[in-house]
Amino acid sequence: MDKARSHDPGRGQPPASLGSATRGGAAVPLAVALNPSAPATLQQQLYSALRSAILEGRLGPGVRLPGTRALAESLDVSRTTVSLVFDQLRAEGYLEGRARSGTFVSDIVPDAHLSVSRRRGARAVSRPVSRQVPRQVPRQMPRDADRARATGVMDAVPQADGSMPQRADISRRGSQLSSLVVTSTPLRGGNGARAFRIGTPALDDFPLQLWGRLLGRCWRRATASQLSYAEPYGALQLREAIAAYVGQARGVRCDPEQVIVVSGAQQAFDLVGRVLLDAGDAAAVEEPGYRGTRAALLAAGATLVPIRVDGDGMDVAALRARPSPPRVACVTPSHQFPLGVTLSAARRLALLDWARESGGWIVEDDFDSEYRFRGRPLPSLQGMTADARVVYVGTFSKTLFPALRLGYLIAPPALVEPFARARAAVDRHPPALEQAVLAEFIAGGHFARHVRRMRALYAERQATLLQLLAGEASEWLEAVPVDAGMHLVAWLREGMDDTRIAQRLLDAGVVASPLRALSVDAIPRGALLLGFAAFDRPTMARALETLCGVLRGETVPVGHRGDAP
Amino acid sequence: MDKARSHDPGRGQPPASLGSATRGGAAVPLAVALNPSAPATLQQQLYSALRSAILEGRLGPGVRLPGTRALAESLDVSRTTVSLVFDQLRAEGYLEGRARSGTFVSDIVPDAHLSVSRRRGARAVSRPVSRQVPRQVPRQMPRDADRARATGVMDAVPQADGSMPQRADISRRGSQLSSLVVTSTPLRGGNGARAFRIGTPALDDFPLQLWGRLLGRCWRRATASQLSYAEPYGALQLREAIAAYVGQARGVRCDPEQVIVVSGAQQAFDLVGRVLLDAGDAAAVEEPGYRGTRAALLAAGATLVPIRVDGDGMDVAALRARPSPPRVACVTPSHQFPLGVTLSAARRLALLDWARESGGWIVEDDFDSEYRFRGRPLPSLQGMTADARVVYVGTFSKTLFPALRLGYLIAPPALVEPFARARAAVDRHPPALEQAVLAEFIAGGHFARHVRRMRALYAERQATLLQLLAGEASEWLEAVPVDAGMHLVAWLREGMDDTRIAQRLLDAGVVASPLRALSVDAIPRGALLLGFAAFDRPTMARALETLCGVLRGETVPVGHRGDAP
Repeated sequence: MDKARSHDPGRGQPPASLGSATRGGAAVPLAVALNPSAPATLQQQLYSALRSAILEGRLGPGVRLPGTRALAESLDVSRTTVSLVFDQLRAEGYLEGRARSGTFVSDIVPDAHLSVSRRRGARAVSRPVSRQVPRQVPRQMPRDADRARATGVMDAVPQADGSMPQRADISRRGSQLSSLVVTSTPLRGGNGARAFRIGTPALDDFPLQLWGRLLGRCWRRATASQLSYAEPYGALQLREAIAAYVGQARGVRCDPEQVIVVSGAQQAFDLVGRVLLDAGDAAAVEEPGYRGTRAALLAAGATLVPIRVDGDGMDVAALRARPSPPRVACVTPSHQFPLGVTLSAARRLALLDWARESGGWIVEDDFDSEYRFRGRPLPSLQGMTADARVVYVGTFSKTLFPALRLGYLIAPPALVEPFARARAAVDRHPPALEQAVLAEFIAGGHFARHVRRMRALYAERQATLLQLLAGEASEWLEAVPVDAGMHLVAWLREGMDDTRIAQRLLDAGVVASPLRALSVDAIPRGALLLGFAAFDRPTMARALETLCGVLRGETVPVGHRGDAP
Repeated sequence: MDKARSHDPGRGQPPASLGSATRGGAAVPLAVALNPSAPATLQQQLYSALRSAILEGRLGPGVRLPGTRALAESLDVSRTTVSLVFDQLRAEGYLEGRARSGTFVSDIVPDAHLSVSRRRGARAVSRPVSRQVPRQVPRQMPRDADRARATGVMDAVPQADGSMPQRADISRRGSQLSSLVVTSTPLRGGNGARAFRIGTPALDDFPLQLWGRLLGRCWRRATASQLSYAEPYGALQLREAIAAYVGQARGVRCDPEQVIVVSGAQQAFDLVGRVLLDAGDAAAVEEPGYRGTRAALLAAGATLVPIRVDGDGMDVAALRARPSPPRVACVTPSHQFPLGVTLSAARRLALLDWARESGGWIVEDDFDSEYRFRGRPLPSLQGMTADARVVYVGTFSKTLFPALRLGYLIAPPALVEPFARARAAVDRHPPALEQAVLAEFIAGGHFARHVRRMRALYAERQATLLQLLAGEASEWLEAVPVDAGMHLVAWLREGMDDTRIAQRLLDAGVVASPLRALSVDAIPRGALLLGFAAFDRPTMARALETLCGVLRGETVPVGHRGDAP
């Protein structure tokens, strides 16, 4: 690296000139290390070196730079290169030219920057800029005080001086948002399909090749206008396919114009919270119920009103008895999450009445309705009357695959524009290609066929799991078969702590959501949710062995447990 | 349709029995029209017909149904079919069996439902259920009073009885959200790439085949776990590619761990509003500036503080002079939107100081930084110091294509978890396939190559537009060449109304955003934003002819205009 030149203009001294004539031994070396074989051009390297030197104070305000000819010679680069760099730095305000007296470092670089950035930035200057390797500076950060303050936003770690970090870094809303739990899966690294994880379909049985062919076909057909910005409602072809499907399969009464394509049920709940609720408004949720819905409502600043679920679904009488009616009531009528019960017809009608009388809205999450093993699928609440005050929500995460990120919200005509406009402000519109592929997949009959196949498979897998649970596990677990869905509820013996058991299972590599985590209030008896859709018999048998081991360790004579609820 | 049977059980009369014996002339006909060649099974058809009849009151509470054998005979279906339908309706609570006395319509169907739904539903009953055609009921709705009330949420249209609609249908926040404007393009039907629409890249020059090959390759490699739920941060491979790219091309200092993949810049702004701001907090924005940013901040309940932009970018001194500092300041430093100026180095440093001193956050929207035609691209504000209080936002909508819906937010370490957790609550995570394709596209060098090609093309297209504007249009328009980006600003002669001219142009099929729409406060002089990236010379020439026609019509002697600002 024979082209390296070191300069020390002497920070804090009167303006000095920089150049070969004034170069001296370097206490704070200015390493202008130009490397002709680096990916960055010599011009880029010189620019970076000078700019860093200015920002880090090694070239102080008022320092006079050598002429372009002198600097070019000393660095062995062309004079044009130096001129272009000076022009650039002058354009950006780092340098200024004074008439007849040369080029100087601007006075405007504030001292605060110089002192702060010097410590950190000095190291990076002589490192060649790399095209592929990300810059390493922040990797070092966890070790220093700033990182402690940084993580302190979440964990309230004391700073180096012992004081507590300021809350001011994020808003109160931001703090609350980041404390919300959408799923029991950890955010990092917890996304494999481990038994008995709920909500994961049998992805090994997804028709990958067929979907791939449709992908290729739709992409080849793509026009410039399909690559451009689109309407927030979603692609018309897909909205038509969804309207036809939910009309036929779920008895939903809707026009394609009422369908808004969203990036999954979670975005639908988020839009519901933002469009239908003001901060402080009350929202009724099922107890126990789905945490994703709750997270979205809490994110909107809502106050949750948990309504107990029994064998007939949500206790609508309790909802109607409330003196000030909630603005929305979120329900899973065809297959309650997590208990799997069906909202009775009497309660459905009572719920529709509640909405009409109170001016509230029903949010119908038609959860797992596609996978009904016994009886005819119950039609949707939305379709029971022509003018139901229902926002209907569905997703393709369970019927196709979660990473697709497509779902739908079907709004009453009055709400279509508000929801679509909110979606535009939130993230504009859904991506084009997946929508085209999905529309073809539905219209071609592949969707109905896939759901039928999965329904048979999941029925069989539930039978397998029930059979396995009838063994040793039945000593602790009372499994309730479900008529629909992808998981069942296994009630624990009185006094057993589902949350602790779930944590022990997780440590042992088995996933089983505890019922307690899905309840706002305390629950009388613990239970584990066991997903069966994605797992074959050997996988379930192995996981069950682990489960039994953990349960064996938990068992103590009844009446001797201090921590029972 | 010889199998159709009509029944009138006599609503409001004492319980009557339904069957061939009591069949009579139909004032309110119950059309049990079973069609063996329809896609729905006879069982489904019978179920739908009976359920509709109950819900719509044609079979009132307490009405006794005929026995299964009698009904099967009269409808010419098997007795099993009728039994299954009765079982289903009994399970759903529509029917109830009384010991030894037969099957009756439940008493629980409330009268309110009957009266409301009868009017609408009657028509649909005898129509066979179709598998492909969406149900038509709501298509009729715009014509009736409900639709007037519906659109009234947006437009305050009086209802049929002359009263104004209730606001109660959506929340105050929902009303505000749905009034926000993200783009000047109308939500419906305005998404073609018409000259001189801004923000649309040259999609005809996108490497479709190459992208298609990568799509196929990534899909073939997809595993079950890639189809499953994923982390809210985005795919690590893409985060690494983005970190390497912005480090090299934009001087951003970041680790891949700081990169959060979002569905475009708009989602990044939305997350910024929700995580960094509480309702009522002040947020500084550029004046004039980008409406998408403003929409997201307003959606978060923020109070906008417009800060004037001059030739050196945002007037940071005005920001610092504010007695109570805003919580965030949103800037487009490398290429201000819409004016195209660059934030000077002095102001950049002052802005970084402002953030440090006030504890505020800078949101750096690195708008169109890739397309710089003259000079070296200015490095990002984020990279100027190691611990800059900057949230950096970028998008692939302009460099690749908008319908991709992928962008990125690069957060200081302290904010990564809050942003990722908020994203999880909002819509969980980005879709998998596009992320994999994009990561390969960047890592393979295709991204850099495409941006280089587009940069040359856009420089050429700007030159073409400037040449065209030097003709007749120069009588009214003073076009300012830009050093970077995809549009230029053409200032109108004093007193000309840009908003009205833009509307007239739109009526004539030409898109030109008026500057006034991008300003919170009044502006001294109107201008039109003319996009050039997506249009060849003939297209621009034609659009310019229309533009000149409209401007000619606008011109009146100065001093004689009553409506000039």
